[in-house]
Amino acid sequence: MTTAAATRARVEGLAALCAEAGLDAIVATKDASIAYLTGFHGLQLERLMAVVVRADATGALIAPALDRDGVTAAPTDCEPVLYDASSNGLPELVGALRGARRVGVEEDHLPHGRALALAAAGAELVPASATVMRLRVAKDADEIAAIRRACAAVGEVMEELFAQLRPGMVEHEVNALVEYRLRRRGAAHAHPLVLFGGHASQPHGEPSTRVLEVGDVVCADVSGSFDGYWGDLTRCGTVGEPGEWARRAWAVVREAYDAAVAAARPGATARDVDAAQRAIVESAPDVGDCLHGAGHAIGLEVHEPPFLVPAGGDVLVAGTVLTIEPGIYRSGQGGIRLEDDVLVGADGPELLSHLPLELRHIPADAGQTDRRTGS
Amino acid sequence: MTTAAATRARVEGLAALCAEAGLDAIVATKDASIAYLTGFHGLQLERLMAVVVRADATGALIAPALDRDGVTAAPTDCEPVLYDASSNGLPELVGALRGARRVGVEEDHLPHGRALALAAAGAELVPASATVMRLRVAKDADEIAAIRRACAAVGEVMEELFAQLRPGMVEHEVNALVEYRLRRRGAAHAHPLVLFGGHASQPHGEPSTRVLEVGDVVCADVSGSFDGYWGDLTRCGTVGEPGEWARRAWAVVREAYDAAVAAARPGATARDVDAAQRAIVESAPDVGDCLHGAGHAIGLEVHEPPFLVPAGGDVLVAGTVLTIEPGIYRSGQGGIRLEDDVLVGADGPELLSHLPLELRHIPADAGQTDRRTGS
Repeated sequence: MTTAAATRARVEGLAALCAEAGLDAIVATKDASIAYLTGFHGLQLERLMAVVVRADATGALIAPALDRDGVTAAPTDCEPVLYDASSNGLPELVGALRGARRVGVEEDHLPHGRALALAAAGAELVPASATVMRLRVAKDADEIAAIRRACAAVGEVMEELFAQLRPGMVEHEVNALVEYRLRRRGAAHAHPLVLFGGHASQPHGEPSTRVLEVGDVVCADVSGSFDGYWGDLTRCGTVGEPGEWARRAWAVVREAYDAAVAAARPGATARDVDAAQRAIVESAPDVGDCLHGAGHAIGLEVHEPPFLVPAGGDVLVAGTVLTIEPGIYRSGQGGIRLEDDVLVGADGPELLSHLPLELRHIPADAGQTDRRTGS
Repeated sequence: MTTAAATRARVEGLAALCAEAGLDAIVATKDASIAYLTGFHGLQLERLMAVVVRADATGALIAPALDRDGVTAAPTDCEPVLYDASSNGLPELVGALRGARRVGVEEDHLPHGRALALAAAGAELVPASATVMRLRVAKDADEIAAIRRACAAVGEVMEELFAQLRPGMVEHEVNALVEYRLRRRGAAHAHPLVLFGGHASQPHGEPSTRVLEVGDVVCADVSGSFDGYWGDLTRCGTVGEPGEWARRAWAVVREAYDAAVAAARPGATARDVDAAQRAIVESAPDVGDCLHGAGHAIGLEVHEPPFLVPAGGDVLVAGTVLTIEPGIYRSGQGGIRLEDDVLVGADGPELLSHLPLELRHIPADAGQTDRRTGS
């Protein structure tokens, strides 16, 4: 769990970056940034939540009154500022700025309407998402340990899944069961995406009533957050012996995975890691398409910057944890993806998850009817 | 499921509002607005998704290439505009605007950074969340039927929960099981929040390792989306005979619930519905606090405008579905809330969910150890 000492150090770190950037204050609004700076894990919905960090290293946590108990219990010395249902929280946020003029905001999160309101109240808004992420991107030892634990829990659920998959199972029921297992282990958030056969050609398909059939590939992307931190792994299998396409696709992705993991070093750019996998996946157009980047950072959010995409200019720093997840997809046929969480260590990449990469074998004859043949 | 005829009519409806407001185009970016206008249910994360609706009733659906199969299958005649991992989607969005100058945006969703980019590309941004919601707020018969079905599924899960709750159960495990049951019934999203005893004094507490004890109240808020539409219900119970506080709190909330439901009529304002419950809850300060409004609209989102709060000036229109959820909370003691989904019918309020409101009785002696006494 986050300690008061950790949140104090983080507020001081952000205040220093604030001063360095010539800002009077920074307003952090992402759930993850709020949790990072204060240890408070809220459920934001339409109600404004924010942390104000001023250049003098004082801070305020603005939240709706219905979160009063959670705010009070949070390990932070930021001043709690609660607003009741008669307010939208903006007057309280403006008050907490104490007249700060140049105000950094998380421009990839703060909605346009709230930005207009802050500007109308006299603030000159400066994009500061990158400033907040400069602090959040390099994980400390406690954070890395939390991600390791999350990966271990996700890995256990993954192994249970592949041990139990059988033809005849229904996609959305399988996903429900995986989610349940993550939650029972204590996941505060759980996001399984286990897709069968042709449906797996959609990297973000929605679990459906599709039934697992002999010959299907299974692409199992399982993620969950534990003690605030995410683990995110993907493994694949086939029902019965893998066909020619699945074998070739897996081999391409395995090679791309090795190349991307090896590229995850301090000083490399996000685009370097992507380029390493992309060169390999795109060299096999007869197998399928390269539909996404090499992955992204992970931590308090399941998707954090830097994003490992062709336009990714960020230089990787030691302590960043990346989820590396090359994949190849062919419409109608399926998708194969391999994903592990990797620490960008000072001395090179270090895997935080330890699960065999192999294409899993799912028994074709498990006493279930083969729905394709009706046999 | 959403039909192509429905999405066409909605695009035409928004185009008409667009013209009426003097806008050249509207950019809808909320997942729910995108689903409403196109039938496409995406997973947005950091990748831009948007629907552009022009005043001439043509439209475009902008999405990352990794969603190509879902976009292709969507029941829409909006032009699909896919961008690959080398783009952040903004150039494609700007292209789809075809030089539109006055552009409506969902200002409560569009991030500040993307607003800056659109403005830099020459668009004059006009807040248009309310314009999009003018269309979305009044549900058609298919939508109301979908919410009814969602309420029925949520209600079944609620009854199973109260039939099975016993002292000794662990809060986060109970929540995991409720979520699993919602998912197995086909929920695309599921959000149970079942809190025990003193923890229930936090309307948005996070399920913990707390064990259910004799004498505890249980506040069970269960929501899930089915075929795109949400149902959201709350019922409460006590382990063993209800104590004096639980009985009084339930009676206050029951009275507040009746008053708020009765106030949910066309022509009333959002604040009228809130005032109806607030007057009753706030008249019992010795029982607990009024920590939130009377509720909010529900549909493709679990929380939609209008929000039933003291500042809510929106006038209710027939066809709106509200979740009415007054509650009372006392720190250390617990919380009682009652919640149903209510159609603002032309002739008055109509409940879409049909579950007894009574304070449920959970057996105290179920062969489980009473952890408080160790007996």
